[in-house]
Amino acid sequence: MSALRVAGAQLPNVVGDLDGNRERIADAMRWAEIEGADVLLLPELALTGYPLEDLALRGDFVSAVKEALNALAAESRSVTTILGTIVAVPPRRSWDIRPRSVANAAALLCDGEVRGIYHKVLLPTYGVFDEARSFAPGTEPAAVWRIGETVAGVCICEDIWSGDGPAEAQASAGAQVLLVPNASLFHRHKPEGRLALAAAVARRNALPVVYVNCVGGQGELVFDGGSLVVDRNGEPRFRAEQFDPTRFCVDVEAAPPRPVSPAVKTVHTRACADRAPISLPASPPQLDDLEQIWRALVMGTRDFAHRSGASTAALGLSGGIDAAVTAAIAADALGRESVLGVAMPAAGSPPRDLADAQRLAKQLGIGFQVVPLDAMMSAFEGALAPVLEGSPAREVRHDLLARMRGATLLAISEELGHLALATGNKTELSTGSATLHGDMAGNFAPIKDCPKTLLYRLARHRNARGTVIPEEILSKTPSSLLRESVSLPPYEVLDAVVERYVEKGEGFQEIVRCGLDPIVVRGVLQLIDDAEPARRLIPPGVKISERTFGKDRRMPISNAWRPFSAEQARLAPNQGPASAPATPKA
Amino acid sequence: MSALRVAGAQLPNVVGDLDGNRERIADAMRWAEIEGADVLLLPELALTGYPLEDLALRGDFVSAVKEALNALAAESRSVTTILGTIVAVPPRRSWDIRPRSVANAAALLCDGEVRGIYHKVLLPTYGVFDEARSFAPGTEPAAVWRIGETVAGVCICEDIWSGDGPAEAQASAGAQVLLVPNASLFHRHKPEGRLALAAAVARRNALPVVYVNCVGGQGELVFDGGSLVVDRNGEPRFRAEQFDPTRFCVDVEAAPPRPVSPAVKTVHTRACADRAPISLPASPPQLDDLEQIWRALVMGTRDFAHRSGASTAALGLSGGIDAAVTAAIAADALGRESVLGVAMPAAGSPPRDLADAQRLAKQLGIGFQVVPLDAMMSAFEGALAPVLEGSPAREVRHDLLARMRGATLLAISEELGHLALATGNKTELSTGSATLHGDMAGNFAPIKDCPKTLLYRLARHRNARGTVIPEEILSKTPSSLLRESVSLPPYEVLDAVVERYVEKGEGFQEIVRCGLDPIVVRGVLQLIDDAEPARRLIPPGVKISERTFGKDRRMPISNAWRPFSAEQARLAPNQGPASAPATPKA
Repeated sequence: MSALRVAGAQLPNVVGDLDGNRERIADAMRWAEIEGADVLLLPELALTGYPLEDLALRGDFVSAVKEALNALAAESRSVTTILGTIVAVPPRRSWDIRPRSVANAAALLCDGEVRGIYHKVLLPTYGVFDEARSFAPGTEPAAVWRIGETVAGVCICEDIWSGDGPAEAQASAGAQVLLVPNASLFHRHKPEGRLALAAAVARRNALPVVYVNCVGGQGELVFDGGSLVVDRNGEPRFRAEQFDPTRFCVDVEAAPPRPVSPAVKTVHTRACADRAPISLPASPPQLDDLEQIWRALVMGTRDFAHRSGASTAALGLSGGIDAAVTAAIAADALGRESVLGVAMPAAGSPPRDLADAQRLAKQLGIGFQVVPLDAMMSAFEGALAPVLEGSPAREVRHDLLARMRGATLLAISEELGHLALATGNKTELSTGSATLHGDMAGNFAPIKDCPKTLLYRLARHRNARGTVIPEEILSKTPSSLLRESVSLPPYEVLDAVVERYVEKGEGFQEIVRCGLDPIVVRGVLQLIDDAEPARRLIPPGVKISERTFGKDRRMPISNAWRPFSAEQARLAPNQGPASAPATPKA
Repeated sequence: MSALRVAGAQLPNVVGDLDGNRERIADAMRWAEIEGADVLLLPELALTGYPLEDLALRGDFVSAVKEALNALAAESRSVTTILGTIVAVPPRRSWDIRPRSVANAAALLCDGEVRGIYHKVLLPTYGVFDEARSFAPGTEPAAVWRIGETVAGVCICEDIWSGDGPAEAQASAGAQVLLVPNASLFHRHKPEGRLALAAAVARRNALPVVYVNCVGGQGELVFDGGSLVVDRNGEPRFRAEQFDPTRFCVDVEAAPPRPVSPAVKTVHTRACADRAPISLPASPPQLDDLEQIWRALVMGTRDFAHRSGASTAALGLSGGIDAAVTAAIAADALGRESVLGVAMPAAGSPPRDLADAQRLAKQLGIGFQVVPLDAMMSAFEGALAPVLEGSPAREVRHDLLARMRGATLLAISEELGHLALATGNKTELSTGSATLHGDMAGNFAPIKDCPKTLLYRLARHRNARGTVIPEEILSKTPSSLLRESVSLPPYEVLDAVVERYVEKGEGFQEIVRCGLDPIVVRGVLQLIDDAEPARRLIPPGVKISERTFGKDRRMPISNAWRPFSAEQARLAPNQGPASAPATPKA
């Protein structure tokens, strides 16, 4: 028996774009025929895009998908195309009283027909995922498919990760190869985890695994490709490029035939053509951590812009690191000629900052404008004086200035047709240092999931390919996260606490046990909790961490719980960062 | 056998406030002892507050809840207290690969101990609910409890609604009465639905149902109380006040003894004391639709403010209906002396609007200030002119003005310690007519779920108890939802389309079938879809409809799907509302 020739396509599909997705799929199908593949494996929900959220609950959408699926089936020829899609199923209740009538599915298309449909069994309902909200779980985890001379299992994403789930059921039912469509998110620690898990599945079930992932930014999420082929010993045979809608074709040596479940379904029974084996394509070198993050930020920003109908962007240039990294991402994403930096100095802004902003714009080669805010601020303060009975407090003035900058940026963006980029980072958003409707005003916030300390590393990483961020910006001390009432620890400490509390979900005791000052930790945790309402109103940005703010971390908007006990709060009652004021921060 | 004396308390518990919730629960326990009740039934998650979202996933929180539960158990005496709480359970996988190790539970406390724990089986994962994300489902739906001479079933909220779930299993296992803790949300059509369902459960299982709900606003949600006692024929015996943290005590005639499952657990075996029956307390009259909505808006606004640490509020007064209704809600919620209205006229604002704003403030008895925006706008336009090469377009100017108003309101609120209220309504938010970071700037948006046409009805309803909204405001034509490029149908049509598309999830064909103009409908649906990114950035507000924007309706932020086909789009290619511009609206 010859090897199974599997073609894979890391399609850059778009949520809801049935026409565009269908065309990309049809194109891949034609290519796979030319390649002489036995199977074309496409990503999870390739036809509809991922994630669908409540679009999957709309009857009109489900009907439209069915039409598109049937049209693609009619175009199928001798290659068995495994296509991620949604399909209607008989209404079924599972974990609550609402019946679900749609499944996350893989359709097997061949010879002009839909020859079979597998329904995803395990529905991720954690992190950013809400699949139990939309889908009925599959009830046939052990389904296997005869494709020519090979019996194949088809699992969708989560289905292979349980250790005792559909992958194992299919291996027991006779599968000699496992074909796995995925919509697998990028985050910093994902690629190595993915390979380790695919290898474990292959070894446990003694069969090769072909794992195809999609590519592209969708809202806050980035899918990074990096499809995998692992042999039945768990050895990696091929890894596709990350962040690139690449295609590949590999000969996969299926496991020897096994006793097959009588429930096996047949896609077709044609013998493999007699053909010369193809040599294994070369795998690209594994990208390092910072390069992966950079590409995710660039791809996420580019796709958000394009999918919003924008091809250009504007942002405020403060002369600091946040704006510098955001500008560099935007320039890499949209082209430097498509980015406008706007410096908005006010009375009291250090002249050096304006010079640094200008230097950055020049070095990056982006557009640059200066809009001084003095006259606006005077007009505001004058108009507010009678109500406030004098000048606003320093903190209120700081926020007002941030809102002037936001309004200026939005007016320019709206008038000139730019996507407005907000420049806030994860450290600021964690501690409530960004001004609501001010620093974070905009359509997209590329670095919202990047801690401050990471931004410096990213800047140096990007500069290694040609300096775009001036050394002046990298070497100056960042302006403090100032709130009058709060003093904060250095960024290294702050970012460590944020990572432990927000990303890893550790408690006060666990964080303190690592040697951090309990009083500092207590103050930071309280700031993080108090900033929740403001965090609800920040634009979307690229998820790069294991837990970003937003769908990934759903905290109650008002929550009286303190992550330290009354006893812990007594550690040093009059020291450390004060809590945020009881009055909500506007 | 005498009747089972059941005390119920519609506790106003607060998410995360373990100390406060514990004190409220302990107080109810002491009261129930004095009342001589057999059982005290408390709401779902009474100890922790509802909904917990990802707080339930924090190990430190789960430990703190356990301590609080044990302390309450130690205080328990002869009354069996049925207390909603979370509890740790052995990690268990269900619909995905992540084990869940916490259950949504009801603890049965008696004689100083935890005598039993029931784990909720059916976990709502739709609408605003995400329970499958947090909780392991219970595995003992048929658990029943011997409480003195009665065998009781305990179901939690969703558990009773399936028709073939825990309620039925418990009735079959010998339950003579069903005790049901709930956290049941208010929305317009909820109260009648609740009664019909409780009656159906009682009749189906031939046992009385005691249904206790909590009260209060939590983020966007309002729990309206309205606890119920239904006899075994499904006849309503008692209905508690809505929107009020009331307590009640009723003698419930249990169903005759039935064969009991050998798995029955014993809370205690004391015989009922010989005692005179108590007469059934009177049920308050059912509130009409508008009064329920009004109370929900007031309670939701008050609790949001208080739980954010604010006791006063400020809002912009435009002279229109939206601001008027918002101001009246705020005055009812916080007291008229705690509300500040700020009129912010600009060049071109009709003088009548300022007069109407002033009249409203006077009639309501709230504070009033005027901050003219002309100088600010001149300063802005002057500063922007070099970049824009002239004056901004009319629409950009409109949005800029809205952002000046937002910044002014936020500065005043921040300086004076007010909660800033945004005044946008559901119709505006649906069609993208509110300005991002402008009209919708603020901490809370009381009427974000109220369509324009409902606001008029609410205003007249509130005025019937004493005129607070001047007739001048009610009788003038509302300013149009103007976007240069878009013409919109009258509010009656618009609200009907929004209700069908957003709340009911109907498709284009269904909506058109009701006689609405297909071209108008098509234009409105496209506006609704295009406004999704802006809707992500609106402050929380009170949910009153079956589907509000936010957690309740999770649409992809960028979504290429159109709810009408290419064929439908051809209906009249050059007529009807234009689509929103391709460039994202800042």
